[in-house]
Amino acid sequence: MSFDRLIKKIVDTQNPTVAGLDPKLDFIPKYIVDECFAEYGETLEGASQALYQFNVGLIDALCDIVPAVKPQCAYYEMYGWQGMRALKDTIDYAKQKGMFVITDGKRNDIGTTMEAYALAHLGSIKVGINQYEPFGADALTVNGYLGSDGIIPLLHICKETDKGIFVLTKTSNKSSGELQDRLCPDKSVYSVMAAYCENWGKQDLGEHGYSGVGAVVGATYPEQLTQLRKAVPHTMFLVPGYGAQGGGAEDVAGAFDQNGLGAIINSSRAIMCAYKKGNYTEKDFAKAARNEAIRMRDEIVSYIGKIRI
Amino acid sequence: MSFDRLIKKIVDTQNPTVAGLDPKLDFIPKYIVDECFAEYGETLEGASQALYQFNVGLIDALCDIVPAVKPQCAYYEMYGWQGMRALKDTIDYAKQKGMFVITDGKRNDIGTTMEAYALAHLGSIKVGINQYEPFGADALTVNGYLGSDGIIPLLHICKETDKGIFVLTKTSNKSSGELQDRLCPDKSVYSVMAAYCENWGKQDLGEHGYSGVGAVVGATYPEQLTQLRKAVPHTMFLVPGYGAQGGGAEDVAGAFDQNGLGAIINSSRAIMCAYKKGNYTEKDFAKAARNEAIRMRDEIVSYIGKIRI
Repeated sequence: MSFDRLIKKIVDTQNPTVAGLDPKLDFIPKYIVDECFAEYGETLEGASQALYQFNVGLIDALCDIVPAVKPQCAYYEMYGWQGMRALKDTIDYAKQKGMFVITDGKRNDIGTTMEAYALAHLGSIKVGINQYEPFGADALTVNGYLGSDGIIPLLHICKETDKGIFVLTKTSNKSSGELQDRLCPDKSVYSVMAAYCENWGKQDLGEHGYSGVGAVVGATYPEQLTQLRKAVPHTMFLVPGYGAQGGGAEDVAGAFDQNGLGAIINSSRAIMCAYKKGNYTEKDFAKAARNEAIRMRDEIVSYIGKIRI
Repeated sequence: MSFDRLIKKIVDTQNPTVAGLDPKLDFIPKYIVDECFAEYGETLEGASQALYQFNVGLIDALCDIVPAVKPQCAYYEMYGWQGMRALKDTIDYAKQKGMFVITDGKRNDIGTTMEAYALAHLGSIKVGINQYEPFGADALTVNGYLGSDGIIPLLHICKETDKGIFVLTKTSNKSSGELQDRLCPDKSVYSVMAAYCENWGKQDLGEHGYSGVGAVVGATYPEQLTQLRKAVPHTMFLVPGYGAQGGGAEDVAGAFDQNGLGAIINSSRAIMCAYKKGNYTEKDFAKAARNEAIRMRDEIVSYIGKIRI
């Protein structure tokens, strides 16, 4: 259990970023939606096909320069079980194209129920004599509010499958401090959560010093990012909030260690909807996404330099 | 937005309990699994059909005496998108039989992403000229670690659709105290979360004094249940941990107000797997579930008396 596979991809591409795949119908070029409606009707099936076709275009355009994608479950569940099928198909396609897939589900529960989520998203299950990967991502975001009973059931499945988790720690939103910044009594809730992440992961470090238990820390809180990087040196960070939410490259620089490792920065809307800005037509959506991904990569790398292992 | 519809069903049935539908394949009578495998193969589709057939049997046996069911998402996701289709079919069937459906998804995110979860599980979405309910439950469990940005997007959808949410507060598991019991600095994290629930709901109380924002508080912590019942008088409680996890009827008595309202107690495995205890055959699984549901109801009502509005 570690993020070594992810780290290797980051080093190979010299790109510590992940493209969020949050495909609302509004974000998808009209010609794709029209084609899918023509074939499947104005149905959940039709909408889900549009999600998938859009993702295929994005993955094709990004897979040689971006190490990972992060589909956000909510935007697939919104289209029912048909949408969940598009999630599965998207994950399969991204993996086939060599990308590392982080399913952003923020799942949480305890005991055998949490184990069911782990099997659903990271593992495989037996049905009669057959074995299936229900969704089969490489990593899953989770919420640690329930304590160790909610995290430990994931760890042996991550170990068996060489996969990882990212635990919500200091989230990027404005009101994250309502709970996460409270002092209890001398350390903040988010510092306590980060220390748990370090502890859950420490039994099993990867080659490059990072465990398979990461933390979600928002780009919108650069001071906390820098502070946490020092406090939990074996915990990989997944950093949302860059771009649309207001975080810039200078804000995320503190998330990285001296080798440019230890963090992966997410951008969703700025990449998916790049074609809506500048001189692009709808048909250029994939090219626009690629250009934005390159711009983001170059901007971040200008702050952290060459990424080394 | 309130739990008035749920409260009415609780009063009509004189039963403040909810049957958890967490149908692992191991819990399902072999003859159902065999029939589904024979028709659909040893596939995710076959497993999902077994889940659904089991749920139909349970719902038929419980719908006139139990007010609500609580399907646990994890056990459906574990069987992929096919499992999510069984979740949707289960919800439709339970509603058709007059039951109130609480989807236990513990979902959490912020802004438009949280809104996507709300639409997925409680609302409806437009696809072209058509409107669909992706999953269409009556209530959803959620996790408030991200603060108000994660809860407020739900409230207007709950208001439009007369639905509700239950926010994790003091969960039933052993390690729930790792975070939830910490003092920050003078109140515990779970008390802070309960106070937020009261506050998120207070703008819109139902006829019987409860809002549409409830809290999840475990049967395994009777003192905290009693304390919170007084602290947040307009917040309905969903109480897991009865039965298999060790909480008894005396432990949950403090969750109720003087009218026997204010809480609904969940039992999953003890009802689903009742046929595995006592003198039952597999074919009696529904009868066994009904008998256990009656036993549980009578036990709890013996502590709280007649439920009045």
